[in-house]
Amino acid sequence: MPASSVDPKKVQAIYQREQDRLHQSRPKSKTLHQRAKKHMPNGVPCAWMDGLYFHQPIFAKRGEGAYFWDVDGFKYLDMNQADLSMNCGYGPQPLIDVVKQRVATGSQFLLPVEDSIDVSAELANRYQLPYWQFTLSASSANTEAIRIARAYTGKEYVLVFNGKYHGHIDDTMGYEDPNSNSLGFTQDFNKKTINVDFNDLDAVESALKQHPIACIMTEPALTNIGVIQPKHGFFDQLRKLCDQYQTLLIIDETHTQICAWGGLSRVWNIKADIFTLGKTVAAGIPMGTYGMSKEIGEFVSSHLEADDDRDNRGRDGGLAIGGTLYGNALSLAAAKVALNDILTPDAYEKCQQLGDQLSNGLQGLFDQHGLPWLAQKLMSRSGYTFGPEHPEKASDFNRYHDPILYNAMRVFYANRGVWESISSAGPAVSFVMESDDIKSYLAVADEFLTELTS
Amino acid sequence: MPASSVDPKKVQAIYQREQDRLHQSRPKSKTLHQRAKKHMPNGVPCAWMDGLYFHQPIFAKRGEGAYFWDVDGFKYLDMNQADLSMNCGYGPQPLIDVVKQRVATGSQFLLPVEDSIDVSAELANRYQLPYWQFTLSASSANTEAIRIARAYTGKEYVLVFNGKYHGHIDDTMGYEDPNSNSLGFTQDFNKKTINVDFNDLDAVESALKQHPIACIMTEPALTNIGVIQPKHGFFDQLRKLCDQYQTLLIIDETHTQICAWGGLSRVWNIKADIFTLGKTVAAGIPMGTYGMSKEIGEFVSSHLEADDDRDNRGRDGGLAIGGTLYGNALSLAAAKVALNDILTPDAYEKCQQLGDQLSNGLQGLFDQHGLPWLAQKLMSRSGYTFGPEHPEKASDFNRYHDPILYNAMRVFYANRGVWESISSAGPAVSFVMESDDIKSYLAVADEFLTELTS
Repeated sequence: MPASSVDPKKVQAIYQREQDRLHQSRPKSKTLHQRAKKHMPNGVPCAWMDGLYFHQPIFAKRGEGAYFWDVDGFKYLDMNQADLSMNCGYGPQPLIDVVKQRVATGSQFLLPVEDSIDVSAELANRYQLPYWQFTLSASSANTEAIRIARAYTGKEYVLVFNGKYHGHIDDTMGYEDPNSNSLGFTQDFNKKTINVDFNDLDAVESALKQHPIACIMTEPALTNIGVIQPKHGFFDQLRKLCDQYQTLLIIDETHTQICAWGGLSRVWNIKADIFTLGKTVAAGIPMGTYGMSKEIGEFVSSHLEADDDRDNRGRDGGLAIGGTLYGNALSLAAAKVALNDILTPDAYEKCQQLGDQLSNGLQGLFDQHGLPWLAQKLMSRSGYTFGPEHPEKASDFNRYHDPILYNAMRVFYANRGVWESISSAGPAVSFVMESDDIKSYLAVADEFLTELTS
Repeated sequence: MPASSVDPKKVQAIYQREQDRLHQSRPKSKTLHQRAKKHMPNGVPCAWMDGLYFHQPIFAKRGEGAYFWDVDGFKYLDMNQADLSMNCGYGPQPLIDVVKQRVATGSQFLLPVEDSIDVSAELANRYQLPYWQFTLSASSANTEAIRIARAYTGKEYVLVFNGKYHGHIDDTMGYEDPNSNSLGFTQDFNKKTINVDFNDLDAVESALKQHPIACIMTEPALTNIGVIQPKHGFFDQLRKLCDQYQTLLIIDETHTQICAWGGLSRVWNIKADIFTLGKTVAAGIPMGTYGMSKEIGEFVSSHLEADDDRDNRGRDGGLAIGGTLYGNALSLAAAKVALNDILTPDAYEKCQQLGDQLSNGLQGLFDQHGLPWLAQKLMSRSGYTFGPEHPEKASDFNRYHDPILYNAMRVFYANRGVWESISSAGPAVSFVMESDDIKSYLAVADEFLTELTS
């Protein structure tokens, strides 16, 4: 038996059968994919839309609330919400209204709009850092955050944790295996990136002693490799180490903002120097943002990009941040609606309750089917650990990782009306779900586990 | 007399008077800016919204067609269209309709939608390269294009031209003066970036001989430093050199796509290996895109990101491209409408005619006022060369560059209902302008030049 305690032949058989079924029942997706291959590599507009799946891509048609439909008419309960970017749901009415109004009256001016004040004030209120800037994605927010950290500290190194994901940006793409996924980067691309294990404070301190580290960038819990939670006291010590070595702590709440109002950092009392966010923060309209402490915000104010078209306002110049559509009126209008009307304290509370239903339900199924598995539990987010211990670092995750099992499950679910874009991420509650949606999910999980263990 | 042939004291006096008038007449912008400073560095959501201007930012309220209004009720004819990103106009009806419909039915699925096929096919038709991928900005399209060029050629260097702008991305941020605007970059950030003069084929060949250069990235004409046009035969020779040294030619049509259907490259018969685009291509809804030759597209198809969640489809893995919202349904729906309904061949022809009216009108005014200046002429785009010769390289531009004059003009215009975000860019015709709009612009220019030369 492998680590996951299930028969790999059975897993393979389910996977193959379900994959065939998925393909055979979706002729319209197949036809579109054939056409799409003429003008897009692998027939998709973004590499992930092929790379995330073992099977040919299905083409999406429309979404509504917690569900979407593909071009062949199949309906899916969406448990991953486009890697959480649509966690506010498909087509929330206040978003439709504001987007229509904003596009009708100009979506971008390269000038500030009043919404930027309301959005930055509300983000400051939630995340408890005063100054905010806007980009188009969490990746570009992380890029600017690292640039600012380097300028502010005068140091060059960046420390990240094995198993992290902060976007396909050079500075955090250092891989454990330097040969993987590094095509097209220079030989030196990750020379200034240090990777250590999550929860390993000794390794962090050792790196801080060895290298001038501008910032430690991490999620509150690693979420791109199942869910890896911090040990008790980890972030308190990390904060102390950052202060001791004059290193900034950048917390990427892009995925974890769905868990709690103000992010996991607020619940866990993590004191960041910079927060970065993307995805759900503007209800799926492209936007990234980052918040800074008073000192860092003032530093940014006084170190704008140098330009010979500049009067003498006493600024040093030199910080190349910003982009043409960064802080555009449409993204900000969407963010305002998302924050005020969807991502409310009450809605978070409801999502957390549904999250309990989800993770308790999954654990109940594992127990009932005699599987020594653990349901992950991160408020509105759950997931599968195919073993008796939750991972504390990336290599623990790898011990129980079983890509075929994940994908067999994913395709089995897809054929029964449940969609999870990213097989290893685990299901997440969205802001438009109800208790019955969780029950539907658990019923399909039960069906899968029944066949798996029969 | 300085190079611009006008009295600097008079320029300074106009600038100061107009700047004061702008500030004093816009109390609502001032109040908003005071509030905005509490939660955003310099009181703006994106650094450019402060950095581009000498004066306090004005806050935009709404736009319609070729015009927008600020919060104090002033109306502006927009001659720069948010650095050309709104060149399709404010609130075109087909865009309003499709955006509303797409947000109502789901704007992003992390799955392909049929629109991606239509958009990539139409881009292939216009730009004559078969394979397309999508991002959220031209900056991220350029980032991916360079990554692909490095992976495809196995070389690391990037050659760009002095005065270029391809986004705030590390690989093209090499400055002539390495100390400017490089705060927050590593010491080595531009070690693999070669900057040579535009139109200098000897310098290009010398660099190609000296370094393994993955790609040459350039606009068809440099447009971030006034307009610098290629000499006759420049791109033919550049193409030959690229072929000879097995270097890719990446043409950034982000700014110049407004000039002609299929870009300036189509008019001038520039054969690129990769085209990159952003801004206007989706009518101001955030989107970047890049097109590739057959060989490069096939290379990308077979070198997707390696992932242990991968079956054995014989792919090598390793190319880290893509992002969560890249290729999202909203951006693609907007691009489809922009391409089919706004950026049509007829509309381009009309813009080019208005562009003639604009540049001929400006030249007429310069002559009439006895100024030895030249009007720039790049189809729908014009501009000011404050001297008797158009620049052929960045240092030529700098010879006649006069930031105070540019900004005096810009603020003078703003106080008379004409807006140019970027003072040195020069005016551009947009797809919603009429001949009377150009006349209005020229009337204000005449008023300015009259005072300047009186």
